[in-house]
Amino acid sequence: MPYISTKGQQMPASPIRKLVPYADGAKKKGTKVYHLNIGQPDLETPKQFWDKLAHLDMKVLEYCPSNGFASYREKFSEYYNRLDIKVDPSNFIITNGGSEALLFTMMSCINEGEEVIIPEPMYANYISFATTSHITVKPISCSIENGFALPPIADFEKLITDKTKAILICNPNNPTGYLYSRDELEVLRGLALKYDLYLFVDEVYREFVYGDEKHFSALNLEGLDNNVVVIDSISKRFSACGARIGALVTRNQDILAAAMKFAQARLSPPSLGQIAGESLFDLGQDYYDGVKKEYQSRRDLMVSLLNNIPGVKCPTPGGAFYAVAQLPVDDADAFCQWMLESFSHNGATVMMAPASGFYSTKGSGRNEVRLAYVLNGNDLTAAMECLAQGIKEYQQKSANVINLKTQTV
Amino acid sequence: MPYISTKGQQMPASPIRKLVPYADGAKKKGTKVYHLNIGQPDLETPKQFWDKLAHLDMKVLEYCPSNGFASYREKFSEYYNRLDIKVDPSNFIITNGGSEALLFTMMSCINEGEEVIIPEPMYANYISFATTSHITVKPISCSIENGFALPPIADFEKLITDKTKAILICNPNNPTGYLYSRDELEVLRGLALKYDLYLFVDEVYREFVYGDEKHFSALNLEGLDNNVVVIDSISKRFSACGARIGALVTRNQDILAAAMKFAQARLSPPSLGQIAGESLFDLGQDYYDGVKKEYQSRRDLMVSLLNNIPGVKCPTPGGAFYAVAQLPVDDADAFCQWMLESFSHNGATVMMAPASGFYSTKGSGRNEVRLAYVLNGNDLTAAMECLAQGIKEYQQKSANVINLKTQTV
Repeated sequence: MPYISTKGQQMPASPIRKLVPYADGAKKKGTKVYHLNIGQPDLETPKQFWDKLAHLDMKVLEYCPSNGFASYREKFSEYYNRLDIKVDPSNFIITNGGSEALLFTMMSCINEGEEVIIPEPMYANYISFATTSHITVKPISCSIENGFALPPIADFEKLITDKTKAILICNPNNPTGYLYSRDELEVLRGLALKYDLYLFVDEVYREFVYGDEKHFSALNLEGLDNNVVVIDSISKRFSACGARIGALVTRNQDILAAAMKFAQARLSPPSLGQIAGESLFDLGQDYYDGVKKEYQSRRDLMVSLLNNIPGVKCPTPGGAFYAVAQLPVDDADAFCQWMLESFSHNGATVMMAPASGFYSTKGSGRNEVRLAYVLNGNDLTAAMECLAQGIKEYQQKSANVINLKTQTV
Repeated sequence: MPYISTKGQQMPASPIRKLVPYADGAKKKGTKVYHLNIGQPDLETPKQFWDKLAHLDMKVLEYCPSNGFASYREKFSEYYNRLDIKVDPSNFIITNGGSEALLFTMMSCINEGEEVIIPEPMYANYISFATTSHITVKPISCSIENGFALPPIADFEKLITDKTKAILICNPNNPTGYLYSRDELEVLRGLALKYDLYLFVDEVYREFVYGDEKHFSALNLEGLDNNVVVIDSISKRFSACGARIGALVTRNQDILAAAMKFAQARLSPPSLGQIAGESLFDLGQDYYDGVKKEYQSRRDLMVSLLNNIPGVKCPTPGGAFYAVAQLPVDDADAFCQWMLESFSHNGATVMMAPASGFYSTKGSGRNEVRLAYVLNGNDLTAAMECLAQGIKEYQQKSANVINLKTQTV
C-alpha cells in the first residue's frame, strides 16, 4: 500500500473541529451542546439573500469567470468605496471563502521555505495554509496581560531574516478579538517598507467593532499599494458562512496575475452564493448597526460572566466575535474533551476550541480556550453557568485524583 | 516591491480560458462567438434543482461539515450503489468541485518532487494542480492515430522510477473523449499492484458513454481498495458547473484522514449546491438516457463535419463531450487567436482550446485543438461551417505571406 505524503501527515487537525466526534457523542446521549467552538453566527442571513434564491430565473447553473461575476465585483467595490477605500472591480478575485483567498495569496507571494510572521495566538488555519504551501510560520507572541495587543516593533525586527517575506494579521483578530489601531497598522507599514515585505490583513470581521473604536483598513495605508493584500468574505458580515464566497483584494497587479492562474486552475468560485450575495451589499447602515449592537451586548455579557468565574481571566475584545480566556486548568485540550465526554449540567454542556491549536509555538496557550459569542444572551448565560460548574467539577476531580495518588503512596 | 513566488510565475495560464480577452474583443465588435473552448454544457440544470432553491425553508446559511452534509453523502453513495459500486457515505469527501478533490488527493498522497504518470493530451489543470503541489508530471504519449488509446504497458514501465507514486487518468477522457475499456483498466491495476502505485481516476464524465460501450469504474478493480481514488463532480452529470460540488471517493482510510485535514482547513464546501444537488440523485434512467442521446447525436454531427473539412482529422470519441482534432495549421494557438481577433463568417466565429496546453511535453499538439460539443445541433453545424471557412482563409493568408516573402526575395 503506497504511503501518505509527509504534508498529509504534518497537516494539523483543526482545533475548531477536532472535538466534533465528542460533541456528537454528547448529543447522542441527549446532552444539549452550546457551540462556542466555531464562528458560526446564529443571526439570520438577511431576507434579501433568500428572496433572490426563491426567485431565480435561470435555466443552466453555469461556471462564472475565474475571478467571479463582474456584477458581483462591481457591487463589492462600491461597498469598499463607501468605506472610503479606493478600489475598483479589477482589484478583486472572488474565492471559495476567505480560506481560498489566503491560500492563493500565500502561494502567489511566498516561496517554499520562506517565512511569514504572524502574531499568536493566530487563526489556526493560517498554520494549515502555510503547511499546505511549505511556508514557515514565525510566530510573534502577544500577551493576554495587555489584551493581545501588537508586540513591540523590536520583537518583530528580531524575527526578520532574509527569508521573511510577509507579515500576516487578522484585524479585528480571530481568535483574540483584538482590534489593531491605526497607529499599530502604521508600525506595520513602516516595517513593510523598511524590509520590503508583504502585509496580508484578514479583514473579514471589519464591521464587528465595538464602542467608539473604528476599523482602519490596511488598503488605506499610504504608499503600500504593492505590499498589501486584504482577505475578505461575506461569511461573517452577512451570516452566510455556507455560501463560501470570499475575496482577495489588492492593487498589486503581479499578485492579481499570479492568483488568477491559481483561480483559473480551479475554474470558478460558487455561482449561487454570488448571485444571492450581490444583493447584500445594498444593505444600509441600519443592518450593520443592528448586528454590532447585538454582538456588543453578547460580548459584554460573556466577558463579564467569564471573569466572574474563579480563576478565569478574559480581556475585553475590541472586535470580531471571539475571546481567548485563560482557565484554571492545566490542559485545556483535555478539559474541553472532558466537558463533552464526561460532563453535563442541567442536561447541557459547552463546546470550546482549545487555544493550543491557535499557537504555532509548541506548548503555548495550554490553559487557554477560544470562545465564539455566536449565541443569544440566554444561551450564553446558560453556557457560562455550565462552564463555571464544569470548571468546579473538573478541579474537584483533579484534586481527588491527586489525593488518591497521595493515599496510594 | 516584494517579488512574486516562483510557483506563481510557473503556474500555467489556462488554455481553456486564456483566449477569453480575444473572445470579449470579438463580442464587442458584434461578432457571435460559438464557445467550443469550455466544457460548459448548454443543457438545462434539472428542474428539481431550481425547485429546491425556490422553496428553501432556512434562516441561516451555515457551514456544513468539512466532508459535506451527511444527507448529501448518503444520497451520493446510494447513487454509487445503484451503479454496483460498493461504497458508503464515509468514503466521500465533498469538495469545491472536482478540482479541489484532485488537489486534496495529490497533496495527501504525493510528496514534492515525486512523480505522477498521466497520458497526454491531458486535462490541462492536472498540470496546474501538480505545479501547485510541486509534483512532477511524467506524460505518456497517446496517439491520435489510434484514437488516443492507452499506450502499451511497456511505455508505462519505461517511465516508472523510484519517484513514481501514482498514475492519473480521466475516464472517459477530457480532452480526447477516449473511453478506457475494462481491459485497459486491468492493465493499470496490474501496474499499480506491481509497483505499489496509487491509481487516480477522474470519472466525472462516467455517464457520457456512447453506443454500446459501458463505463467501468476503477472502484470496481479487485484488490485495489487502498490504491484507488476516484474524482467526481455534479458539474457535468447534472449541468451544474456553477454549484462547485465535487467529491473525492476512496476506501483508503489514510487518504480520507489526510484529505479531511485539508478539508477542515478550508472549513467546508458550498452548502447551497449540496442542498439543491441532493435531489438530483433521485433522477431516473430516463434522465441519463436523454442526456446521452443528445450528446451522442452532437458527437456524431461534429465529428463527421470536422472530418469533412480538408486537412482535418478527428477520431470518434467514445465518451465525455470533447474531441481533439488535428488541423491543417502550423500553430493552433496562433490560429485560435486569429479566429477571434481577425476572422468572422456570417457575423460569427468559433472559440476553441488550443491543445498545446493539454500536453506536458513542450512542442506537442501544436496543430491540435480541443472542441467541446456543448452546443445544440444547429449551432454546432454553423460553428463547423465557420471553422471550415476560417481554415480556408487562414491557409490563403499564410500562402499570401509566403508568396510575398518569395517575391521580396
